[in-house]
Amino acid sequence: MDTPKLTEISSLGEFGLIDRLTAPLPAQPHNPQTLKGVGDDCAVMRYRDTDLLVSTDLLLEGVHFDLTYVPLKHLGYKAVAVNLSDIYAMNGTPRQITVSLGISRRFAVEHIEQLYEGMRLACEIYGVDLVGGDTTSSRQGLVISVTAIGDAAPENIVYRSGARDTDLICVSGDLGAAYMGLQLLEREKVASAGQKDFQPDFAGKEYLVERQLKPEPRRDIVEALAQAGIHPTAMMDVSDGLSSELMHICKASGTGCRIYEDRIPIDYQTAIMAEELGMNLVTAALNGGEDYELLFTVPLHDHERITKVPGVAVIGHITRPDLGCAMITRDGNEIPLKAQGWNPLAADDKTNS
Amino acid sequence: MDTPKLTEISSLGEFGLIDRLTAPLPAQPHNPQTLKGVGDDCAVMRYRDTDLLVSTDLLLEGVHFDLTYVPLKHLGYKAVAVNLSDIYAMNGTPRQITVSLGISRRFAVEHIEQLYEGMRLACEIYGVDLVGGDTTSSRQGLVISVTAIGDAAPENIVYRSGARDTDLICVSGDLGAAYMGLQLLEREKVASAGQKDFQPDFAGKEYLVERQLKPEPRRDIVEALAQAGIHPTAMMDVSDGLSSELMHICKASGTGCRIYEDRIPIDYQTAIMAEELGMNLVTAALNGGEDYELLFTVPLHDHERITKVPGVAVIGHITRPDLGCAMITRDGNEIPLKAQGWNPLAADDKTNS
Repeated sequence: MDTPKLTEISSLGEFGLIDRLTAPLPAQPHNPQTLKGVGDDCAVMRYRDTDLLVSTDLLLEGVHFDLTYVPLKHLGYKAVAVNLSDIYAMNGTPRQITVSLGISRRFAVEHIEQLYEGMRLACEIYGVDLVGGDTTSSRQGLVISVTAIGDAAPENIVYRSGARDTDLICVSGDLGAAYMGLQLLEREKVASAGQKDFQPDFAGKEYLVERQLKPEPRRDIVEALAQAGIHPTAMMDVSDGLSSELMHICKASGTGCRIYEDRIPIDYQTAIMAEELGMNLVTAALNGGEDYELLFTVPLHDHERITKVPGVAVIGHITRPDLGCAMITRDGNEIPLKAQGWNPLAADDKTNS
Repeated sequence: MDTPKLTEISSLGEFGLIDRLTAPLPAQPHNPQTLKGVGDDCAVMRYRDTDLLVSTDLLLEGVHFDLTYVPLKHLGYKAVAVNLSDIYAMNGTPRQITVSLGISRRFAVEHIEQLYEGMRLACEIYGVDLVGGDTTSSRQGLVISVTAIGDAAPENIVYRSGARDTDLICVSGDLGAAYMGLQLLEREKVASAGQKDFQPDFAGKEYLVERQLKPEPRRDIVEALAQAGIHPTAMMDVSDGLSSELMHICKASGTGCRIYEDRIPIDYQTAIMAEELGMNLVTAALNGGEDYELLFTVPLHDHERITKVPGVAVIGHITRPDLGCAMITRDGNEIPLKAQGWNPLAADDKTNS
């Protein structure tokens, strides 16, 4: 919030603000499916041969983000990115988003333009059209609601429910870094309290901060799997932590699972940060949340092919349901998985009681 | 909020709450277009011959609703109804909605169930499937974001931009009642302040209260127009007031308009209430907002047919753009229309400065 010249939103009104925010949008949509964007009662789209995917997320200030250390442009980017992640997690292609904003009086037009700039950047990079939304005042902080619309050929859609006994469990990228980034940002926020020219110390931990502030949906993994001729049997994105998501897949598929502690991909910066904070590294990787990596299962016969896909780790396998969900530790013990992932409703309770 | 036995939301957690809220949803979707509802990363839909319509609204406590006098079930119904209204305003059929909720700690599971009950009722009546959403905690008050998805044959979609010189301007139902209902509810709220067993006096004004608390999207009008073989040239729903919406149509269509004061449909309860409050009746009807009636234009040659459609008033006609937008008063004067409709961003400013 370091814009020098600020314009009060009330001086533009709702329609003036919308005009200003939507003016920099591309004149031509990225997708031929987008027939009519902002400016009528509804956006209009045309899908003929593919099935439609719709996902929505609500982000509230003070619950999902803290503007003390989250730049508005990053926030806009992330708000879009996490929704696109849901479309990729169905093995689909995102095409459109709608964006609703509730804006409190401490925001100026320029702040909302920064937020929109991040949203437009994400739309540009992932080829998505911003087609509508709602803009209103808010009594309490910033409210962001994004709905993403995408599509996929019917035979390509991957649900959570398709995992089968002996399937390999795979995860993209690495886990726990976004959570550690959050811890780091919170630590520096506390350290900076009251100091005007405080310089946060992120040296050697840039990756953690980036993972927290600017997650990327894994389009590259979806494309790499298609190129390798691999069709996942089940897939979802890791937003609430590996443990919780894996249990969702097993519940939806009616299976159990075994994952191996030493296979869980963890970046060295994550490990160092966990050490510094005296936190259990594996717990952070299992339950940290906000990784936005893809968790998926593939048939056993794809083993050779999947090991050749860069950025994918095979971390275990699906089992019969009666074996339950467990992790095999480095010393060979079996620990049942728990869905203690990031639960915003329970979390709120914890912080307040 | 008079439920005797209340369950803390934190005792269920996010997934427990979602399970409880979605359990009463119909096992079979209303629409064959709905392939997969709640329970995966995305909802999945199939549209093959029709175009897709998407609309979204954000409702914030303290800005859009006051739970002092709005029952949660009514609020849920209205949150869905106003979104469906946007789909009908494109001459489409609503098929699915997603619902995101931000819930603060003063709400119990039973409260959110009441809200959902109203949403389910609206879905039931209008044949819509609730296919997904997001549920999270909120630091302050209730946040409701609804996205509606519908469809229409490409040739049937009606935009705001199709009005032409000499077209007739039509509006369904009557105007200003929802606004007067809001004034009445606010008045009774003030009168009740501090009184425990206060009984609000709505005698003879039940219609106004109903229009404010339980608006109905005008599916019946869309159906009646189709049956009468009338295809509107432009259409939108009246959410911000007739004056503002009519100017939207004229701007989008590149036209002017004339409407006649004595043709504006107003219910007698609205008139009595305006008299009681010393408000200008026509101003209330032009700028009141939240009517959720349909404002549309039809070609002049449909004049005879449109006058036979019950519940529709012809209130004026479209003109060349250079004539501007104006109302002809009862005494023959011409008053330029102003878009001073209900503007949530400016409104916030007004109440706070």
